Amino acid sequence: MSEDLIQSYSTKDLSIATICSHTALQIFHGARQEGFKTIGICRPERKELYEAFPYGSPDEFLLVDDFSEILQSEIQDRLIDAGAIMVPHGSFVEYVGPSRILEDLRVPTFGNKMSLNWEGNRHQELKWLSDAKLRLPNKFEPHEIDRLCIVKFHGAKGGRGFLLVSSEEEYHQLLEKSLKEGKISRLDADTAVIQEYAIGVRCYVHYFYSSILNRLELLSMDQRLESNIDELHRMGSTRQELAKLGVDPSYVVMGNIPMVLRESLLPEVLALGERTIESSQKLFSPGLTGPFCLEMICTPELEFIVFEISARIVAGTNLFPLGSPYSCYLWGEAMSTGRRIAWEMKEAQRTERLGEIIS
Amino acid sequence: MSEDLIQSYSTKDLSIATICSHTALQIFHGARQEGFKTIGICRPERKELYEAFPYGSPDEFLLVDDFSEILQSEIQDRLIDAGAIMVPHGSFVEYVGPSRILEDLRVPTFGNKMSLNWEGNRHQELKWLSDAKLRLPNKFEPHEIDRLCIVKFHGAKGGRGFLLVSSEEEYHQLLEKSLKEGKISRLDADTAVIQEYAIGVRCYVHYFYSSILNRLELLSMDQRLESNIDELHRMGSTRQELAKLGVDPSYVVMGNIPMVLRESLLPEVLALGERTIESSQKLFSPGLTGPFCLEMICTPELEFIVFEISARIVAGTNLFPLGSPYSCYLWGEAMSTGRRIAWEMKEAQRTERLGEIIS
Amino acid sequence: MSEDLIQSYSTKDLSIATICSHTALQIFHGARQEGFKTIGICRPERKELYEAFPYGSPDEFLLVDDFSEILQSEIQDRLIDAGAIMVPHGSFVEYVGPSRILEDLRVPTFGNKMSLNWEGNRHQELKWLSDAKLRLPNKFEPHEIDRLCIVKFHGAKGGRGFLLVSSEEEYHQLLEKSLKEGKISRLDADTAVIQEYAIGVRCYVHYFYSSILNRLELLSMDQRLESNIDELHRMGSTRQELAKLGVDPSYVVMGNIPMVLRESLLPEVLALGERTIESSQKLFSPGLTGPFCLEMICTPELEFIVFEISARIVAGTNLFPLGSPYSCYLWGEAMSTGRRIAWEMKEAQRTERLGEIIS
Repeated sequence: MSEDLIQSYSTKDLSIATICSHTALQIFHGARQEGFKTIGICRPERKELYEAFPYGSPDEFLLVDDFSEILQSEIQDRLIDAGAIMVPHGSFVEYVGPSRILEDLRVPTFGNKMSLNWEGNRHQELKWLSDAKLRLPNKFEPHEIDRLCIVKFHGAKGGRGFLLVSSEEEYHQLLEKSLKEGKISRLDADTAVIQEYAIGVRCYVHYFYSSILNRLELLSMDQRLESNIDELHRMGSTRQELAKLGVDPSYVVMGNIPMVLRESLLPEVLALGERTIESSQKLFSPGLTGPFCLEMICTPELEFIVFEISARIVAGTNLFPLGSPYSCYLWGEAMSTGRRIAWEMKEAQRTERLGEIIS
Repeated sequence: MSEDLIQSYSTKDLSIATICSHTALQIFHGARQEGFKTIGICRPERKELYEAFPYGSPDEFLLVDDFSEILQSEIQDRLIDAGAIMVPHGSFVEYVGPSRILEDLRVPTFGNKMSLNWEGNRHQELKWLSDAKLRLPNKFEPHEIDRLCIVKFHGAKGGRGFLLVSSEEEYHQLLEKSLKEGKISRLDADTAVIQEYAIGVRCYVHYFYSSILNRLELLSMDQRLESNIDELHRMGSTRQELAKLGVDPSYVVMGNIPMVLRESLLPEVLALGERTIESSQKLFSPGLTGPFCLEMICTPELEFIVFEISARIVAGTNLFPLGSPYSCYLWGEAMSTGRRIAWEMKEAQRTERLGEIIS
Repeated sequence: MSEDLIQSYSTKDLSIATICSHTALQIFHGARQEGFKTIGICRPERKELYEAFPYGSPDEFLLVDDFSEILQSEIQDRLIDAGAIMVPHGSFVEYVGPSRILEDLRVPTFGNKMSLNWEGNRHQELKWLSDAKLRLPNKFEPHEIDRLCIVKFHGAKGGRGFLLVSSEEEYHQLLEKSLKEGKISRLDADTAVIQEYAIGVRCYVHYFYSSILNRLELLSMDQRLESNIDELHRMGSTRQELAKLGVDPSYVVMGNIPMVLRESLLPEVLALGERTIESSQKLFSPGLTGPFCLEMICTPELEFIVFEISARIVAGTNLFPLGSPYSCYLWGEAMSTGRRIAWEMKEAQRTERLGEIIS
């Protein structure tokens, strides 16, 4: 980002802008709490939703038919004139695409855009998490299978069509069976990935790395609700019995529930976050800044196996617009991730360090 | 309700009354926050509970041995003298009965009493939900079975004694088996209802339709905890294996846990609520006003299948006396459904529109 | 505790001390809200965690390599000089041991230390719960088995290696099978305990008995998250199928999620707490004072079966540093168990009744 732009922003009345979806209610609510003007980039049919929540609604709507319109020069100029800082969230990244955000978005964006590129590419993501020495699910060759493994087939969506195996013999046996039954193709079989089946309870930890305060904050955590897997057990049938009834497990995120972890697990959870930040600073300087989430499983041995990173605000934070059981220990008052982002901007402007938290 | 009564209430110091059960702590707490006097209609043995919670306790107890006593002329006169507005909740409706509330309760009641009649009659409820074009679980004749269906037997309580079938053949086969084993009678078999087994994750959405502000509010949502089904999976056995051990699944509501939905699902959730209100205005003018709940399943395709409506405050709102992750976007401060009811009354009285929100 | 010590504490500026683990963030946060100075007894490697949460951090760290060091005379003198009152929590009791707390800890301790002894000894705990007429899971001899029972083997940890049986015949059959397969030893078989398998949904209720206000408070409740049992159902396999894959169920507590109970169940829940207090006053006068938790199952018949008591603050209260859906009805403001403890101390000192709440 140009020095001129940062310079012009440093004395301007800033506003916070985002795409009306995902965590926008929380982002606008938090911005309002910190005294920012807000701009919602919105599809016409979604406007009504935000108007239905006055305190989560933007001050100004910028209506677009397609979210990629925000890359149009005219719209970008308009946003820059308004002193807008964009807050990228999951839908933002999905609709616009990390590479276009990196290359074509001139509007100052909260955080380091490169983080989005690194989370969006499975190969880079693994490099990042490995470099941070997080414990990832192990990959296996058939002859290495010595524990319960999940065999994933390329293109099998929503968790459909995977195999559980615990030996090489069983692997070949079940693979042949699936081939014979026409459930998978020869190509599927040849490109199958064998991964340790990490058994434990899921936990999604919401961090915030503050470049301005130079500290890592653990703001909150959640468990995802996935349809239909989180209710399938109520049928009291095995996966095989369900398959006969035409019911396959699927893992479509529909919402979130709150949780806390044992206090004795928090040092490890903070350490995982810190290593993630340090690694990001090495891999794509100046590294990640702002909110991120590590998606992990806590095993019965109380080890954390990390299976994914989200390098921006995650939807699970929507549970905590009124603060969380962790953010109160950090701030002594109700602090959501949305408000935290706004606070960081305000403080960065005040201390003339805006350049460190936008890109 | 007589014009005289509304007239007399319009200048009176009002109080909020309800039966001491269900959501009474929340209703009294909210009434207190909005400055109302409160009256608790209470069985003697329950008084202690409310006294144990000073901020959820009514200012005055009206002790009865049986809740139907509130229909006695003397008690009704006393409540009317005190400027009481009754808030009906689930136990209120259950103990007094919707038709007696409609016909015999003279004390002004928050909301439209006819809503309670419509929710209380399965036939009318279906008419309402269908008219609102909500997606309900489909019903099938045996020869129509083309997907997983649940066969429900009349009188089978708590989810006991149902069958899961996915073809006509299987339907007849399992029905015969159940008859032979004496699990169901010939009458049960003849009156069985075959319904699509809606597979997804449950979500109970708490709405508030404000006649005074002319807007629909999404205040909160929950998931119900049901005993024993929500813990049965811990046994790691199939329904058949459990049946052999004498353990049947049951679905007795014992509590609630909080949740949020993906923001992108909220427009649809609001639309379902709006259609429910519009339909109520057509079917029983002036229609529903105040709190209601749609009980739904979110499928893996992120469609909502609605299986029930509660046309009054629901117990799941008890999670949010301190506000919810949605009500903060509506009110900018802690707003429970209980407090919301009190606010509506206060505003209705102030604007001389009490007649629109009581019946 | 000596009268002199109580005397000296009655006019001192008190501070609240605990071991940095378990619920320490909440305890320090609550102490701070009530204006107390705080002291954290901490292992060097844990200091960083507490420093990462400024509002949950103690004012002063007392670093130890082993928590039993707090029994050293010098450290105790230092704590007493600082007017410290110790708050015992789960890890505190685990690390120091209930008998050493009772015999060797001279620093005034919040609550009645004898409670910790009674909860810590399975024999005494059962006596206590039975005396309080709580419904416990029944024990059976083999010939008495007339319902689903769980057979627990001595030394089998984390829920591994238990049997489910529903008749004497099945008991002997499965026991022999396990012996033959070498899963259990003859000693295991001979010392096995047969217990009714209580089927229902778990609920952990957080009480606070106030000697100062002479009342029992229901502050909050939670459900524990246990790894891996709370996620195992996602595999869609029976216990037997999982065992073949080398996956055994385990019950290691990793965290907590919030819940509420139906309001109509609260009178019974309060009664269980009251009987527990009354019984404690009889068994170990003056009885339990301060926070405790009953760990129970709610059956489909809405009966509560109690399986354990914790006679001090429990980790599930960590969900509610901002108050709970119950504490707001008690206090009209955000009240955590941690803050409640501090409030009780402040009020006890003000009314010169410190001797009643410390030991």
